[in-house]
Amino acid sequence: MLPLRLAFGQTNPIVGDFAGNLAQIIEHCEKAERAGVELLIFGELAVCGYPLGDLSYRKDLVELSELALSELVTKSAAFPSLTILVGFARLAEERSALQSSKALAHNSAAAIRAGQLLGVYDKRLLPNYDVFDDWRNFVPGDRDLVIDVVGTRVAVRICEDIWGGDKESTEADLVAVLNGSPFTFNKTAQRIEAARTFASGKPIAYANLSGGQDELVFDGESFVLDAAGNVTYRAGFDSGLWIAEAGQDYALLADEKLFQVLVRGLRDYLAKTGQGKIVLGLSGGIDSALCAALAAEAMGPQNVLGVSMPSRYSSDHSVTDAELVARNLGIDYRSVPIEKAHAAFESMLELSPLAKENLQARLRAVILMGISNSESRLLLTTGNKSEVAVGYSTIYGDSAGGFAPIKDLLKTDVWRMSRYVNQRANRELIPVSSIEKPPSAELRPGQLDQDSLPDYEILDGIIRILIEQNGTVSDAIAAGFESATVLRTDAMIRAAEWKRSQGAIGTKLSEVSFGTGRRVPLTTRFESK
Amino acid sequence: MLPLRLAFGQTNPIVGDFAGNLAQIIEHCEKAERAGVELLIFGELAVCGYPLGDLSYRKDLVELSELALSELVTKSAAFPSLTILVGFARLAEERSALQSSKALAHNSAAAIRAGQLLGVYDKRLLPNYDVFDDWRNFVPGDRDLVIDVVGTRVAVRICEDIWGGDKESTEADLVAVLNGSPFTFNKTAQRIEAARTFASGKPIAYANLSGGQDELVFDGESFVLDAAGNVTYRAGFDSGLWIAEAGQDYALLADEKLFQVLVRGLRDYLAKTGQGKIVLGLSGGIDSALCAALAAEAMGPQNVLGVSMPSRYSSDHSVTDAELVARNLGIDYRSVPIEKAHAAFESMLELSPLAKENLQARLRAVILMGISNSESRLLLTTGNKSEVAVGYSTIYGDSAGGFAPIKDLLKTDVWRMSRYVNQRANRELIPVSSIEKPPSAELRPGQLDQDSLPDYEILDGIIRILIEQNGTVSDAIAAGFESATVLRTDAMIRAAEWKRSQGAIGTKLSEVSFGTGRRVPLTTRFESK
Repeated sequence: MLPLRLAFGQTNPIVGDFAGNLAQIIEHCEKAERAGVELLIFGELAVCGYPLGDLSYRKDLVELSELALSELVTKSAAFPSLTILVGFARLAEERSALQSSKALAHNSAAAIRAGQLLGVYDKRLLPNYDVFDDWRNFVPGDRDLVIDVVGTRVAVRICEDIWGGDKESTEADLVAVLNGSPFTFNKTAQRIEAARTFASGKPIAYANLSGGQDELVFDGESFVLDAAGNVTYRAGFDSGLWIAEAGQDYALLADEKLFQVLVRGLRDYLAKTGQGKIVLGLSGGIDSALCAALAAEAMGPQNVLGVSMPSRYSSDHSVTDAELVARNLGIDYRSVPIEKAHAAFESMLELSPLAKENLQARLRAVILMGISNSESRLLLTTGNKSEVAVGYSTIYGDSAGGFAPIKDLLKTDVWRMSRYVNQRANRELIPVSSIEKPPSAELRPGQLDQDSLPDYEILDGIIRILIEQNGTVSDAIAAGFESATVLRTDAMIRAAEWKRSQGAIGTKLSEVSFGTGRRVPLTTRFESK
Repeated sequence: MLPLRLAFGQTNPIVGDFAGNLAQIIEHCEKAERAGVELLIFGELAVCGYPLGDLSYRKDLVELSELALSELVTKSAAFPSLTILVGFARLAEERSALQSSKALAHNSAAAIRAGQLLGVYDKRLLPNYDVFDDWRNFVPGDRDLVIDVVGTRVAVRICEDIWGGDKESTEADLVAVLNGSPFTFNKTAQRIEAARTFASGKPIAYANLSGGQDELVFDGESFVLDAAGNVTYRAGFDSGLWIAEAGQDYALLADEKLFQVLVRGLRDYLAKTGQGKIVLGLSGGIDSALCAALAAEAMGPQNVLGVSMPSRYSSDHSVTDAELVARNLGIDYRSVPIEKAHAAFESMLELSPLAKENLQARLRAVILMGISNSESRLLLTTGNKSEVAVGYSTIYGDSAGGFAPIKDLLKTDVWRMSRYVNQRANRELIPVSSIEKPPSAELRPGQLDQDSLPDYEILDGIIRILIEQNGTVSDAIAAGFESATVLRTDAMIRAAEWKRSQGAIGTKLSEVSFGTGRRVPLTTRFESK
């Protein structure tokens, strides 16, 4: 049994769009009131959007957040039997002595009922790892908040508060936690474990945001644990009002969840930045095919243009596979052979063999960016994490683009996801030949990825250890990988740091993605042993 | 009078190059011992390099740091009358309860004499603003360290410790502070003020690092304040052993200092990443001319190649000015007209007028990157801060490059610096015609920057308020700028966020540069009022 009739408002806020964010919140309040909900919990900073980054330094933004909260308090008079917990930013009265930052606001939760502000809680434990800069951007709080909701004492916490080791210790019957918790592999289990450990024998209600914000996808799945730590309810992935009914679990299966995360990250980046159309190069290979499938799902096939740009080295199957994926997906298709430009540059420049390969990739980028600029289409760059890790790409060439949908997906996962895309559609969307042929950049005759790189199964295993587990070269060797291969991979990873520093953002999937959560110097001579 | 015979070891470490960093330290120790120095103070993390970024999470790196420190302790037996204070990283025994990070090391200072480790101090106040991620990367300390140096009690602190508001309160006669303090405009005065406020009536010796690390340039200028807060000694900009002699001030004048910072940032980026040669496009304009002058100074003219890439829209003076700057500087010069490639792409693609302009910039990037790849030359991108702010550049075009020497220099400062470059050489290096002609991208006939942008004097004033002072639109209007111009500038700044996220690194000069110290979402609808 749940201690209260409670619901989760999984909103999909846009940073700084106070009117839009508030409209979502109020819509859920109206529905919840009609459904007889007693306690409605929204996500962390649902009023402002999260993360704010250094916009949290903007006093005018924080004041708008306080204003939006006041408006919500006023409007809550229309929902007299509903208690609302919602995240917002508010100006801090004083800073913490331990903190040397420009932070001026708290990351807070307001408890609201029937036109009244019942109380405010300020997040205490401010995460400062991975993508999280809360200690940089917010002032920590230092007070408990316990409110009474129809006789149930509800303790309020925010996100990292429950991950910090200390256990809940207030005199409360239920813990309510407002979260801005982005998807990563296995995060669901980690959240449940953290909540169970923290709640310390009390029931706990965990509310999350939903939707994409830059490289993050908030994956919903708000949940309730009973006093014994069992999951008694779990909401789904999408935004919406999720009324907790005991025994219901709307979580998606793993492959479908990953597919939805990839689609959502891409769709929300376009939607929230006011873009509607996509262009991408179709090489006939699997990476661009998977990106095209994600793009078609995210924006509708009518808004996606695939461009084949064959060169003198392109195989027949590349061109036919490019055309086939476009036809299968129903996206627009265009072919722009690069030979004329290729020949022009060859007559203008003397280039080394490697530079000649890079040249072709850059000519394609010129074409794609020309189309992007002329037709207001966001260019996708289709590199996967294995390539991004070792720098197997041409900067200002195939790495050009405004968004990188699969930059955190290892090549072995690209294969798995591509098969899944066909399986869920119950037909061939991504050509099986693209999935099964040996990967090639086709920048010289007969070229194969495996001429330059370890087998992807091996490469991905090494990347998992060196990057995702922050392991040493010795750790990778101890795990059974050949010493020379590990050292070579480590050297390639280090040499690609400057390229990655100029890479497009893309959806974070793993514990350590190549994005704002991984901050390493470009200038270093550190070599892992 | 100085309380001790003291000296500063201004080393120029490379992150993770323990052997090289230690060699610099030991060389200074030897010299100092010979010169009868009693106390030799090195900079923050001089053993490891600073900042480490997330390499601080690497246990193997921290262990190498401890090992290098042990080696220094052993070798210090050869300098029996010298007390050494040096920065290094060491594994922390436990983490702070307030801290939610992956940090495992302290940012520490060791006091060493005659083969003995006298004590260790761990930095307490961990900055977490601008480029600084110390709270993310290190565990705070909680203990004082006061050592006796020939009868003088010396209290040890590290960098941010003296900026935090609390005053020095140990029973000491002198405060020694180890710093990793990068250059920004007016930083010198800020440091002296912070030291004066902190020392609270005691003399204080402030030691800094020297040299470039990614976007930062540590500008030396270690100094001593007497008990009354007067500067009694100031070291120069360069690395080396600086023995404090009362009354000496080796600080550079402002324009020369800025010039040296720009040169050092560029030189050390190449040197520390193992690169020796440069290529850049010469448009005939002032930005590329200034970058060429900096490059010639940094690496020697024989290692710099300037490439003129005239199009059908290039004016005669552009070509002659490009050639002239190359001749004045004595750098290599090449001309690669883009017409053939331009015509080839026109026959391949239908482009909008704006896309046609961007096309030319991208064709030039293809040429420059071809040369870069073929000849192992680092490509410089020559955009200034005014352009970077409002996105007046073509992504994958003129913004392509591995380093951006003047990305934090406003256009009005580019003019000033260019005049200074000629003045210090006492001849025309940068053609006066490049300095005096109206700026133009020359991507269509008769184009001028001022067709698209406010006058640079106005634009730069607005950027100073909106970016460098984190001001609102209202602040800029209150400062006297026209409302429509401010709003237009603010909108351009916001629209360019995604381009900047893929920009090359470049030397930080201002309080808020476009680099790792400014972290804002790409997806936002926040509009300053």
